[in-house]
Amino acid sequence: MNDHLGTGQGRHPQGSPIRIHLSVAPGERAAFFPPPTLAALAALGEITESEPAALHTPDAFGRALDGVHVLVTAWGFPRLDAARLALAPDLRFVMHAASSIHWLVGDDFWATGLPVSQAGAAMAPAVAELSLGLTLSLLRRTHRHDHALRSGQEWDAARETRRGREISGARVGVVGASRTGRHYIRMCRALGADVRVHDPYIPSGDPLTELRTGLAELLATSDVIAVHAPATPETHGMIGAREIAAMRDGAVFVNTARPSVVDMDALFAEVASGRIDAALDVFTSEPLPVDDRWRGLPNALLTPHIAGATSDSRQRGGQIVVEEIGRFLAGRPLEHALTREDLARMG
Amino acid sequence: MNDHLGTGQGRHPQGSPIRIHLSVAPGERAAFFPPPTLAALAALGEITESEPAALHTPDAFGRALDGVHVLVTAWGFPRLDAARLALAPDLRFVMHAASSIHWLVGDDFWATGLPVSQAGAAMAPAVAELSLGLTLSLLRRTHRHDHALRSGQEWDAARETRRGREISGARVGVVGASRTGRHYIRMCRALGADVRVHDPYIPSGDPLTELRTGLAELLATSDVIAVHAPATPETHGMIGAREIAAMRDGAVFVNTARPSVVDMDALFAEVASGRIDAALDVFTSEPLPVDDRWRGLPNALLTPHIAGATSDSRQRGGQIVVEEIGRFLAGRPLEHALTREDLARMG
Repeated sequence: MNDHLGTGQGRHPQGSPIRIHLSVAPGERAAFFPPPTLAALAALGEITESEPAALHTPDAFGRALDGVHVLVTAWGFPRLDAARLALAPDLRFVMHAASSIHWLVGDDFWATGLPVSQAGAAMAPAVAELSLGLTLSLLRRTHRHDHALRSGQEWDAARETRRGREISGARVGVVGASRTGRHYIRMCRALGADVRVHDPYIPSGDPLTELRTGLAELLATSDVIAVHAPATPETHGMIGAREIAAMRDGAVFVNTARPSVVDMDALFAEVASGRIDAALDVFTSEPLPVDDRWRGLPNALLTPHIAGATSDSRQRGGQIVVEEIGRFLAGRPLEHALTREDLARMG
Repeated sequence: MNDHLGTGQGRHPQGSPIRIHLSVAPGERAAFFPPPTLAALAALGEITESEPAALHTPDAFGRALDGVHVLVTAWGFPRLDAARLALAPDLRFVMHAASSIHWLVGDDFWATGLPVSQAGAAMAPAVAELSLGLTLSLLRRTHRHDHALRSGQEWDAARETRRGREISGARVGVVGASRTGRHYIRMCRALGADVRVHDPYIPSGDPLTELRTGLAELLATSDVIAVHAPATPETHGMIGAREIAAMRDGAVFVNTARPSVVDMDALFAEVASGRIDAALDVFTSEPLPVDDRWRGLPNALLTPHIAGATSDSRQRGGQIVVEEIGRFLAGRPLEHALTREDLARMG
């Protein structure tokens, strides 16, 4: 597929160097590419750089991509439609340093047959750890206590709530056996949780088949519901008003995945009633407006879509970029390539 | 020591039943003694009950303890001084359902030679889990994000903070290899943390000796400092201004143990400066006043001394009470007995 690009010597067969274009926003570039990672990338080819926000005119785009063989993107890069792809005639490989790429590549891109990889694997542990931290907070009602103490309530009033519970022995229901879901499951089980998982696509023979549970049973029996499912047409609204109503009184809900999986109005009503608590990293409308209804609930714990954004995950992402480009240039099999079909499944 | 109380048949050798007095505040009684646990206790002897708050007059105390062989306490029971012990001449065993007993027993009690046990083992996992949850929150800056979103800050401003980091690979420094500290260490290691521990009393041959580190090195090299040391004269002020100043920029501090271990003024100054973040369950003055300085810090995460108080830990506490009384009545060795020397070490 890529033998026309040589054998990892950082040189095109004709002798001209491989050109790698790095277009990652300034606030993220150093996080993905600290000096050792950048040096490793530079060993693979000649690096040029741009700010993705500056590439939205055809002129700027064409100048930046001129002669580029390998393109490294993160967020905010212009969509690779036919017009733009025509301005990048030497492009042979797109390496996305972050996760979702449906906004970057569509029919036009797939029509070219160019390979594309992404570094989503770097983010899974970060998302799973946030989900675990939020789970522990909700189980212990840390958020309720903290919010009460911060809002000037008396000490005794701040203590007055149903007693928290421990993750050891708790039933944790996971929606989605994704890479992130699997990491979250491993950690919860290491802490003694009784984990069940709902996912219609767990392959037979997978150890998770032993934990497989129907969605209705999962919702009705879990102390924790944690969403780790992708946003696809199939998962859209999968956790609706009826599903949320089926959750146990005092159960807790964690979503660090995608908001479209959940009926957010129904969830809001149940959390506002105090029947269940929720921790959310993702919202239907982001940025969340300053006066958004979620911001005022004492039993909600909110983070601004930062689940995948740790310093560790950024460094891993940069390393995956370098390794995957190395594989591409050496003609070895890619480990993080996505097909159009993968994308439909992953959301 | 207790052969005068028969052999677990719930009867005194003379044929009169063993009398067990349960004095646990109403808000805690059902948590410690749900029906199955209470039934198991009733199988050991005849139960009488009182509210500890009602026993502070000699008359009430004498009436409640009259003929009692086994006393079960939790919080708020009057101190067992000589005058009160004289009103309980049949008392043979004190079983404390909670943890600290230094407020309950002193010289007068030890002079009687009566055995006393406590159910602190029930609380260790609860405290350790809260400490872990707070650790994950601080590492991911969940508290900063949540506080920013709740206080009306713009989404982008709420995101703008140093990136969080993962516990996997983080250096976690534990002060105190207590029962709670050991549970916390096991969990952190299960999640991939690089744990070190400071405790001068780790016995040789203990697996924790491999993780042992001097306090100065622990403070200077850790991403997380978690306190699990008892309040003793030796630990008083052990983490002072110099020690806190030695912590890394951006490190986080968790205290679910005792406030006296820490110079809280020095800690406040460093947290208020934003150099480090802290999560605290214990405070020098409890109840924490409504206008306390800690309540206003956006980078502090606060809980109102609830670390040991889960529904699970209460249930375990009740079970330990029943099992330990069963051992006592059967003349078997106690598993949770404390001596005066234990108390000095435990704080």
